[in-house]
Amino acid sequence: MLRILHVGLGPLGVKIVTDLHERGLGRVVAAVDVAPPLAGRKLADVVAGLQSDVVVRADLDVDPRSYDAAIVTTSSDMGACAPTFHALLERGATVVSTCEELSWPYLRHAALARDLDALARKTGGRLLGTGVNPGFLMDAFPVAATAISRSVRGVEVHRFQDASSRRIPFQKKIGVGLDDAQFSAQVAAGTLRHVGLGESLHFVAARLGLKVSRWEEDIAPVYADRDLPSGLGLVPEGRICGVRQEARGYDGHRLVVNLKFQAAIGQQDPHDRVIVDGVPAIDLVWRGGVQGDIATSAITLNAIAALRAAPPGLHTMATIPLVSCTPPAS
Amino acid sequence: MLRILHVGLGPLGVKIVTDLHERGLGRVVAAVDVAPPLAGRKLADVVAGLQSDVVVRADLDVDPRSYDAAIVTTSSDMGACAPTFHALLERGATVVSTCEELSWPYLRHAALARDLDALARKTGGRLLGTGVNPGFLMDAFPVAATAISRSVRGVEVHRFQDASSRRIPFQKKIGVGLDDAQFSAQVAAGTLRHVGLGESLHFVAARLGLKVSRWEEDIAPVYADRDLPSGLGLVPEGRICGVRQEARGYDGHRLVVNLKFQAAIGQQDPHDRVIVDGVPAIDLVWRGGVQGDIATSAITLNAIAALRAAPPGLHTMATIPLVSCTPPAS
Repeated sequence: MLRILHVGLGPLGVKIVTDLHERGLGRVVAAVDVAPPLAGRKLADVVAGLQSDVVVRADLDVDPRSYDAAIVTTSSDMGACAPTFHALLERGATVVSTCEELSWPYLRHAALARDLDALARKTGGRLLGTGVNPGFLMDAFPVAATAISRSVRGVEVHRFQDASSRRIPFQKKIGVGLDDAQFSAQVAAGTLRHVGLGESLHFVAARLGLKVSRWEEDIAPVYADRDLPSGLGLVPEGRICGVRQEARGYDGHRLVVNLKFQAAIGQQDPHDRVIVDGVPAIDLVWRGGVQGDIATSAITLNAIAALRAAPPGLHTMATIPLVSCTPPAS
Repeated sequence: MLRILHVGLGPLGVKIVTDLHERGLGRVVAAVDVAPPLAGRKLADVVAGLQSDVVVRADLDVDPRSYDAAIVTTSSDMGACAPTFHALLERGATVVSTCEELSWPYLRHAALARDLDALARKTGGRLLGTGVNPGFLMDAFPVAATAISRSVRGVEVHRFQDASSRRIPFQKKIGVGLDDAQFSAQVAAGTLRHVGLGESLHFVAARLGLKVSRWEEDIAPVYADRDLPSGLGLVPEGRICGVRQEARGYDGHRLVVNLKFQAAIGQQDPHDRVIVDGVPAIDLVWRGGVQGDIATSAITLNAIAALRAAPPGLHTMATIPLVSCTPPAS
């Protein structure tokens, strides 16, 4: 049974804590959230249905011998997470985080990545960024599929999701119900976008030796072609029901990594797909696609065993042993 | 550039040596084959098109400092390979082998696996069994797909191949052109079968915590429904054009791992498929399937970098870092 220090009790954190207990993988021995409405409350009052006498605290001063791993679900921004990562690694902790930018930290935080890696190696700590996307479907999984490849010239990945069944913060994040002006304003403010396409693109390129001399990312609304029910109320025909994002990495004029992400209420034929231009050609399809909320919680918990088996340091999903569904502790 | 000791110059060994050089991954610095027609010959005469002054030798007395990894492609039978593995591990070598039984050595050679693991840990050596199947499509890959799983109740894997484009020894191994009596005789003699379904089944079950209280494997011929050209000549309608094998693992009365393998000349709709009964449900399809000859050579070479990054010991594809297409050495 894993003893977990959990940091960050937003909707995803609450789901992970719930799943940790329900799956019989372990239990939370300490929980941290700096938000005033949370710190000081009983964890059992924050996480519905949980049997626990843990009280949520606002600091990380927890004896590292009291937990086997820490899970951090606070922010997409690696800079914002850095003090937490530092504090945990200083204590020699094994840390898994859903921080999107940590999934390939060398893109936007190369210096910080070097610091955290050096710190982890010194203290015996370990740090990994994971999640369903970034962290798996558009990076580690396509790369893993090329285990059988003699050569790879380019990779294209599609993730077309029906957001109808996703949690409400996700529906908000993809712009459900907005008009064009609101959509543009939120894009400009940086609040409306899927974070991580750039990280996935560079993960794929780096692991497969594909040179990226230039890359770009764009974002556009998806409009409802009929009235659509959503977690945020009815989306009338013509209103925005989701977002389309695409990242393209070029070697000179040649497109070598192309990631297409679309999440919308009522999306037809949801699926994930990996297309590899190489020898052999690969066309790999997840029929129906992968539901993100279940999967993000699942992979975060499943990655703990593999990370604990890896040597100290800053890791990615490519440097730890195979991550797979962890059975309940017996 | 990897410096490779290659052991075993059958058709697969020759393909791997060719690909090692053609892919720009490294070069063979020593080659071993005990077969009298091979030992003493120039490697360049055994491997068409190869530029090399290596002479094939019959023994393993090669300075381990002269190579980075050894590749062993001699036998499906781990017992038959054991003296070679022992000799290489005694020298502290990193060894990748296509020996099918080594892909999950705990099924048929548990004691030998313990010995080899202990030896490798003592000398700093590493040993891995891999290949496209067993080693990936019906074991490591389905297990990797469950990274996003909250729970797994059962796994079904299909591998339906058109053998028309496979190497002739593979076509022979699957019974192309035989009649029923010949097929039965070769099955009884143990020469006609795909080796490794049991290994894959137990790999999947062990990694996913699925209890297998009983398992079984059966084999049957596939008949040509029309005259079919093959590498062994025309297969007339009604003759055997391939083989169907199935392995089933049960937890009590419940089927928990089901592997369906079919390889036949003229197979319709070739594909590989992973179906996971769990949360979420998974239905993952390699459209067109994965051609085995390219893939087996590719994954054997691709696994070397990951194995070298792993700690000493006996490994499986689940205990080493992510295997992916290795780009040419720059």
